[in-house]
Amino acid sequence: MYIAMNRFRVAKGAEADFERVWAERDTHLGTVPGFIEFHLLRGPEAEDHTLYASHTLWRSHGDFEAWTKSEAFRKAHANAGNRSEGQKSLYLGPPQFEGFEAVQVVKRS
Amino acid sequence: MYIAMNRFRVAKGAEADFERVWAERDTHLGTVPGFIEFHLLRGPEAEDHTLYASHTLWRSHGDFEAWTKSEAFRKAHANAGNRSEGQKSLYLGPPQFEGFEAVQVVKRS
Repeated sequence: MYIAMNRFRVAKGAEADFERVWAERDTHLGTVPGFIEFHLLRGPEAEDHTLYASHTLWRSHGDFEAWTKSEAFRKAHANAGNRSEGQKSLYLGPPQFEGFEAVQVVKRS
Repeated sequence: MYIAMNRFRVAKGAEADFERVWAERDTHLGTVPGFIEFHLLRGPEAEDHTLYASHTLWRSHGDFEAWTKSEAFRKAHANAGNRSEGQKSLYLGPPQFEGFEAVQVVKRS
């Protein structure tokens, strides 16, 4: 299993706007091969921002890689340019990508 | 849903030792109320370390909190002191805890 996370430092006071952008977006993930589940996560608050993370479970790193080269990926990010002007103030810096490979699992017994 | 993550900066060359510690530990999570699933994740490599994360899914933040006050938690961390001497060199600094609340979910369609 592979987890793709993007960490967003969202300016204090912009949390509701940030969440609305995600709620209103067209997602094309649901039928992508190897896609398991997506969560938008709200993390700890720092002095000047709130940490958010997009968190996507993939069957494998290969499935994630294939998606990044696909039409579905292009569509999912098609509006990023259009709305970047108005949204620049939502963020403190660019998102930080981190990919993780699962090396151990413990399930409910 | 709540995700509890601890980020570990593991010294270059110590990755196999770190993974072995986790593989050999006694886990008491499986029957804890509200526990859903645990993964140990291997993340990106930096110049001087490899990022790992423990990644635990909980039904709610309350379930996680209750666990941290439980006998199962005490047992799970009972050996941390005993083995800290030998393991200090595995890490660059202490682990960094981050808790996340899910604010949006997309499932396979």
